[in-house]
Amino acid sequence: MFEDKDQSRTPLSQLGEFGLIDHLTQHFTIAQKSTVKGIGDDAAVLDHSNKQIVVTTDLLVEGVHFDLSYMPLKHLGYKAIIVNLSDVYAMNAMATQVTVSIAVSNRFPLEALEELYAGIALAAKTYNVDVVGGDTTSSKTGLLITVTAIGEAQGENIVYRSGAQPNDLIVTTGDLGAAYMGLQVLEREKEVFKVNPRSQPDLEPYSYLLERQLKPEARKDIVELLAKMEVRPTSMIDISDGLSSEVIHLCKSSKTGCRIYEDKIPLDPQLIHTCEEFKIDSTTVALSGGEDYELLFTVAQKDYEKIKGNPHLTVLGHMTEESAGLNLVTRGETLVPIIARGWNALTQED
Amino acid sequence: MFEDKDQSRTPLSQLGEFGLIDHLTQHFTIAQKSTVKGIGDDAAVLDHSNKQIVVTTDLLVEGVHFDLSYMPLKHLGYKAIIVNLSDVYAMNAMATQVTVSIAVSNRFPLEALEELYAGIALAAKTYNVDVVGGDTTSSKTGLLITVTAIGEAQGENIVYRSGAQPNDLIVTTGDLGAAYMGLQVLEREKEVFKVNPRSQPDLEPYSYLLERQLKPEARKDIVELLAKMEVRPTSMIDISDGLSSEVIHLCKSSKTGCRIYEDKIPLDPQLIHTCEEFKIDSTTVALSGGEDYELLFTVAQKDYEKIKGNPHLTVLGHMTEESAGLNLVTRGETLVPIIARGWNALTQED
Repeated sequence: MFEDKDQSRTPLSQLGEFGLIDHLTQHFTIAQKSTVKGIGDDAAVLDHSNKQIVVTTDLLVEGVHFDLSYMPLKHLGYKAIIVNLSDVYAMNAMATQVTVSIAVSNRFPLEALEELYAGIALAAKTYNVDVVGGDTTSSKTGLLITVTAIGEAQGENIVYRSGAQPNDLIVTTGDLGAAYMGLQVLEREKEVFKVNPRSQPDLEPYSYLLERQLKPEARKDIVELLAKMEVRPTSMIDISDGLSSEVIHLCKSSKTGCRIYEDKIPLDPQLIHTCEEFKIDSTTVALSGGEDYELLFTVAQKDYEKIKGNPHLTVLGHMTEESAGLNLVTRGETLVPIIARGWNALTQED
Repeated sequence: MFEDKDQSRTPLSQLGEFGLIDHLTQHFTIAQKSTVKGIGDDAAVLDHSNKQIVVTTDLLVEGVHFDLSYMPLKHLGYKAIIVNLSDVYAMNAMATQVTVSIAVSNRFPLEALEELYAGIALAAKTYNVDVVGGDTTSSKTGLLITVTAIGEAQGENIVYRSGAQPNDLIVTTGDLGAAYMGLQVLEREKEVFKVNPRSQPDLEPYSYLLERQLKPEARKDIVELLAKMEVRPTSMIDISDGLSSEVIHLCKSSKTGCRIYEDKIPLDPQLIHTCEEFKIDSTTVALSGGEDYELLFTVAQKDYEKIKGNPHLTVLGHMTEESAGLNLVTRGETLVPIIARGWNALTQED
């Protein structure tokens, strides 16, 4: 729908597995000092000397995590890297390397994979990470991408989910729910397109939502900001499944309860308008919509002076004793228990 | 065909994604000192202090890399780990951690994934590696497993593909071609089974070949042996695509030619008998059959005294100047150029 349809098609079988890897990775360069050897041996070799490393991996499956009818392949490649880097930053670490493996069916020509790898290369360059390895294989159906990301940090700076204490402030970066509503807009336009392929939708009123869905960014800047402000979060997680799911993870790991204030949840004006148009409650979207890739963290009360007023950061509430439970304080000042509802569950309810 | 058919079937939807990961990984323990934090946060945290690390990743796709009609799920889990550890050992490093991600369709009940993870756990225990992370997601069709393995070594001990010199001896571990012939036996029995599902094949004459295909091992022992003998190979690779493909990789990376002697290639007697039965040339199978997971390496001439007579090691030939080309010296003492023919190509010729 948004993709330039390139007319040249080179069958993958022309290159073979090694030819394909060589071709797709030929322009990748090494920028990290810690990369001793990248692509081209049995394994990559890394030297993080006296730092600890963090390792995370994610699978993206066509038809489950993405729909190529509205996700351009370059954006998909970009997003596949972003979702993994987001997990590295959620440890308060800096991402340094990724490996990228793809399984792909013969219906994809070489030019499609070049688009995918252009997105991977752009994300790697933007976030200053090296692509150091991977695997390319055929699949019987569809496209599957799996990325492993590696990052580094001094051991004492790594932030786990488990360190929050009662009375710590709960902070989110950015705004929430927009990626989910971007997906709703795309799904609606896909249905319109099926009925009338010549329709030219005006997507301008949804531009921010679509960008959040199709070209998400990871909050590397926040890890740098926290270091500069000399704030070490007591716990941290990235928001991939929706605010409620993530705050439950933090509370469960830290053995705390929490209180989140509905009127503090940061929402973009475009999100509010679109929720009204779709007749969906915007708080529900922020709580249960996924793929925002913002960071959710807790800080000690003493750090409030350092973070207050920062335009990237919003205090949503605070941790409590575990026995107090996990609660949302609504605009009407009633307490509602926070329950896990990832974006999959939400989709099924619509 | 070899699998116990467990009758209990729990749909995966009963557990949800987090429930599934928790359930499948609940018995994994941490054995490596370098594992600071395993499963349960945004990323695993590792501390390899002053060592370099190696990272490698592989995808296994149903219908491409394995056929569940004769590959029991427990063996598949075991093999998925082994093929990655083999790449770590091929760097002369010791494997320490793995992450395991799976995409699985709803046709698999929970009990099937428990079998798969039992194999993963067995391999992890046998090779003393920690399972420190992963991802579990649904797929539209079939099963896909992707493993990333991490290992460690002192930087000066890591062996690349690129260090061989002319006159270095070319050495293989174990014997070659058996895994490929095991696959041929299984494919034949599958065809028989389709015609007559009640047939009870006598697979005893092929037991070694089947074991090599269904339960391969990685040569951790060789890395230990080389250290004990104080032999540092000048180049090394694991044999996953057949001897000819791997020796080409070594020569290309090291900018050398080579001479391999046909009569030196180690073949198991069962392989020789079965090749006769199938009317396939055993040298071709050793050169082009894949999945042996032996190590192929080169050593300086001065190290010959240290390795000679070792039952695990066979000298196949030697490196030459690049200009001399890559050649097989046949039993008839003629020179035949070595060309790349992975096991996929071979299958298509049969």
